[in-house]
Amino acid sequence: MIDELVKKIQEKDAPVVIGLDPMLSYIPEHIVDEAVREKGETLEAAAEAVWQFNKAIVDATCDLVPAVKPQIAMYEQFGVPGMAVFARTVEYCGEKGLTVIGDIKRGDIGSTSAAYAAGHIGTVKVGGRVLRGFREDFVTVNPYLGTDGVKPFADVCAQEGKGIFVLVKTSNPSSGEFQDRLIDGKPLYEHVAEKVNEWGEGCVGACGYSAVGAVVGATYPQQGRVLRALMPKAYILVPGYGAQGGKGKDLIHFFNKDGLGAIVNSSRGIIAAYKQEQYAKFGAGHFAEAARQAALDMIEDIRNARK
Amino acid sequence: MIDELVKKIQEKDAPVVIGLDPMLSYIPEHIVDEAVREKGETLEAAAEAVWQFNKAIVDATCDLVPAVKPQIAMYEQFGVPGMAVFARTVEYCGEKGLTVIGDIKRGDIGSTSAAYAAGHIGTVKVGGRVLRGFREDFVTVNPYLGTDGVKPFADVCAQEGKGIFVLVKTSNPSSGEFQDRLIDGKPLYEHVAEKVNEWGEGCVGACGYSAVGAVVGATYPQQGRVLRALMPKAYILVPGYGAQGGKGKDLIHFFNKDGLGAIVNSSRGIIAAYKQEQYAKFGAGHFAEAARQAALDMIEDIRNARK
Repeated sequence: MIDELVKKIQEKDAPVVIGLDPMLSYIPEHIVDEAVREKGETLEAAAEAVWQFNKAIVDATCDLVPAVKPQIAMYEQFGVPGMAVFARTVEYCGEKGLTVIGDIKRGDIGSTSAAYAAGHIGTVKVGGRVLRGFREDFVTVNPYLGTDGVKPFADVCAQEGKGIFVLVKTSNPSSGEFQDRLIDGKPLYEHVAEKVNEWGEGCVGACGYSAVGAVVGATYPQQGRVLRALMPKAYILVPGYGAQGGKGKDLIHFFNKDGLGAIVNSSRGIIAAYKQEQYAKFGAGHFAEAARQAALDMIEDIRNARK
Repeated sequence: MIDELVKKIQEKDAPVVIGLDPMLSYIPEHIVDEAVREKGETLEAAAEAVWQFNKAIVDATCDLVPAVKPQIAMYEQFGVPGMAVFARTVEYCGEKGLTVIGDIKRGDIGSTSAAYAAGHIGTVKVGGRVLRGFREDFVTVNPYLGTDGVKPFADVCAQEGKGIFVLVKTSNPSSGEFQDRLIDGKPLYEHVAEKVNEWGEGCVGACGYSAVGAVVGATYPQQGRVLRALMPKAYILVPGYGAQGGKGKDLIHFFNKDGLGAIVNSSRGIIAAYKQEQYAKFGAGHFAEAARQAALDMIEDIRNARK
């Protein structure tokens, strides 16, 4: 899967992932109204609005980018109907040829992490049949529980040809509270990075990168430079571009000299582009075209920064 | 909600929570077979088997314990049908008067944690209506992202009268890999514990305990003693009793002098009791009675240890 992702990034010359994090406030009123007219003021209506919104965004951008990253919390908040639309979105994006990174940030004791891994990137067995709960290609994983919380995911990656991105240095303002604290003279995130190398040893693809990657926020470019060097074989998923403050020029150090090694996420900045002054001319009726233009601009920004 | 939980613990004289973590391998064959007969070898059949199993366990034990803790991964692995049975289990336990602790270990950047909090212990708004996605009373939260990943949960606790347990020192073998590392002379888990106090300041109940509690594994009794003293107002959720190796006598230091302050979880040890030699006489046909007996024995073990 890491080989496939790298191939798509090269073919499209776009190390960019669109974050499908559809808060209701991002969705144009006419879509929400239509869903409510059809299904009442229900969780089902919210889920339907999310689905219609996602579908339009994906249709308008799937030729431009290699991957999407649905943030499961934005679906989970609407309960079971929300989870059904998460599953539907993952499957639809797969059919459109996109690599799907489930931003689930799971992580638990061994047997429980194994269940999460089975459900999202692996298989479960019911009677004699092998089934899939959800169908992401990659998921994000929280490392706080250490090796036995992460290894079950890495094992499934090796078996199923899937991948993970382990949280190393997150993009949020308070990420330093624990992650930056010094342990034996090095910040915690560097210790986690060393483990990422270890966890990923057994699943390096033909492209030279491992199926075990890392999450490092665009909002911390200096740490990105250090972590890039520290994890030469880890693909870095970089959130925090755009709305969270990261810019193209902040990103150059997240890439290796081969021009690979990083994939940059933007969520709000693309999917809710029509709400920004720069793209307001599209209007809510053309939100998907606005998203397409924002994706094109982001791809261009990153291409220019890397020149 | 913390007041209600404490009241139930006192009324039942049982600081015990039953972990509803129904791996398919725990469920007696006759239940799985029946579900498969009805629904084929499908995710729906797995979910139905989980539901029938849970219902029997809950019916057989709900008069004994104050709370249950469904581990969402065991449901999530079966995709959307699994999540539907998670929701159904949570609601059923609520109807039976049990406090429901959703073991979800979520945690993300601020806006995303807010969505998780809204979906599990809070509300979402669709049009003019206020709705609930899932309906837990408490959830577990991962602290790796720092204050802005936890605070949205604490805010919802204050608004909705709900609660959280923040992972401080987890029960698994490799929990020390990062959590035990020394920062300024103190292990990371103590730094997290200090933050738990801070996050919980605004929501201390009439019982004297905060709605922001902590998870500390029974498998680490020495750390339990230290953390008990360090977080005087935090209720401690203690996993790892029984199958993971913790025993009643390991638990005494998790309690405060008022006899309160801790609630101990057992999952496999109760719900799959019929598979243990000690309870084998019940047989698979009477798995729920075996669970009841195991719950009674655990309550007794903890009562004796605290004497």
